[in-house]
Amino acid sequence: MLMKRSMAKMLAVICLVILSAQALIASDEVLTQVSTIDALMTGIYDGTTSLGELRKNGDLGIGTMNTLDGELVLLDGIFYQVTSDGKVIRPDLTAKTPFAVVTFFTADQTITLKQGSNFQEFTGNTEKWFPSRNIFYAVKLKGTFKAVKTRSVPAQKKPYSPLAEIVKTQPVFEIKNVTGTVVGFWSPSYVKGINVPGYHLHFISSDGMAGGHVLDFVTENVTAEFDDTREFSLTLPDDNDFDKANLEKDRAAEVKAVEK
Amino acid sequence: MLMKRSMAKMLAVICLVILSAQALIASDEVLTQVSTIDALMTGIYDGTTSLGELRKNGDLGIGTMNTLDGELVLLDGIFYQVTSDGKVIRPDLTAKTPFAVVTFFTADQTITLKQGSNFQEFTGNTEKWFPSRNIFYAVKLKGTFKAVKTRSVPAQKKPYSPLAEIVKTQPVFEIKNVTGTVVGFWSPSYVKGINVPGYHLHFISSDGMAGGHVLDFVTENVTAEFDDTREFSLTLPDDNDFDKANLEKDRAAEVKAVEK
Repeated sequence: MLMKRSMAKMLAVICLVILSAQALIASDEVLTQVSTIDALMTGIYDGTTSLGELRKNGDLGIGTMNTLDGELVLLDGIFYQVTSDGKVIRPDLTAKTPFAVVTFFTADQTITLKQGSNFQEFTGNTEKWFPSRNIFYAVKLKGTFKAVKTRSVPAQKKPYSPLAEIVKTQPVFEIKNVTGTVVGFWSPSYVKGINVPGYHLHFISSDGMAGGHVLDFVTENVTAEFDDTREFSLTLPDDNDFDKANLEKDRAAEVKAVEK
Repeated sequence: MLMKRSMAKMLAVICLVILSAQALIASDEVLTQVSTIDALMTGIYDGTTSLGELRKNGDLGIGTMNTLDGELVLLDGIFYQVTSDGKVIRPDLTAKTPFAVVTFFTADQTITLKQGSNFQEFTGNTEKWFPSRNIFYAVKLKGTFKAVKTRSVPAQKKPYSPLAEIVKTQPVFEIKNVTGTVVGFWSPSYVKGINVPGYHLHFISSDGMAGGHVLDFVTENVTAEFDDTREFSLTLPDDNDFDKANLEKDRAAEVKAVEK
């Protein structure tokens, strides 16, 4: 009887260890994405994945919200939604996203950025220095910025317009002398159509009051951390609009225009 | 004491149920891929993932072997390696692959193919009938074929030539009046650079004696099963040659040439 109890206990402990190990192995070095950038471009804005679900796959990330209602930032496990009036709210975990990319962030490399670097200089310098242009990097730029230029997008009503139309009148925010974190990803060129090749970055200030999709920045005292990522997991929406969308057109130029 | 034993038992049972459920959830509807088609095109032929590892992510799939030594078929959990002399061997689970795609196959739709259909007719008819051109389909064509035309590729020595060079002298096999299974995938156009858009099919005969990469077929009495798949998981090789490869060139024309 004692034997049986100890065996059951041991089995329970073994199972718990496996479960814990699985939780770590399953998610630590994977970039997890909901939907494709081209689906978003065509106007697939209905949220399909809850933030709670998303949170299981990462503590850092970017995206947008149901009906394209603002820019989403996930930093240190907390979601921030930067709406088109520049306000930042903390969305409910039941809220859904139509497009997002997340990972569990662990820095593999850390560099200090030269004071006064802008987005273009940062891009050029880091791309030269990357160990490979064929893998993904999650990035975190933390510190004080002389300026961060962001934009957001307003919630849409059906029938949805394509994203390239909407950003023509996007609200732009010039945030000066701010402490905060730029988060996002650098993706290899072959993700064209699925994700944004190169950098795709969002910003959230330390006081959680300002942020958005990063158009440009000028660094003051900023440390950049990079998480090399060799696993990519894509979940396509189980959604009629997604199924019927024309994803066969080359939208690279549109994506480039929308990112700026 | 009885209470404690029953609690430990219950905990063990709950954990086992969760583990079993996870095993199903984690893998059932995911298309898992090792490396990218463009990396294979450039000559990244060193195996990085063992067949044993691959087997954890699927019971059906296709790929190639370390040093490009033949065409790989995974059917009903069994691996077959069709070498360049047309022979079929059963590779060891410790053998490694540089490129493969697998899934756990469960048929969502089944159709009977018209007698005398070739690859082109099959492609045209099924693409018209797909619920969406924006998701993945695992496919299994089972039955008797009037003919299956396949090819294989020979093992390479370093420095590796690009795949487009190698297939110029590929051995082609005309297999007549054969019972067997065509297995593989249909992928959406946006996977260009990562996987093969459209169909990518391999064949293995029922007697396990013939097979290869499918160039064409003519059906006799064939049932086609389709597994709709909305999750895609990509693992990039942790390999210096992969890291240094030029994956920024558009190789769509090369891939098309190699597939034929």
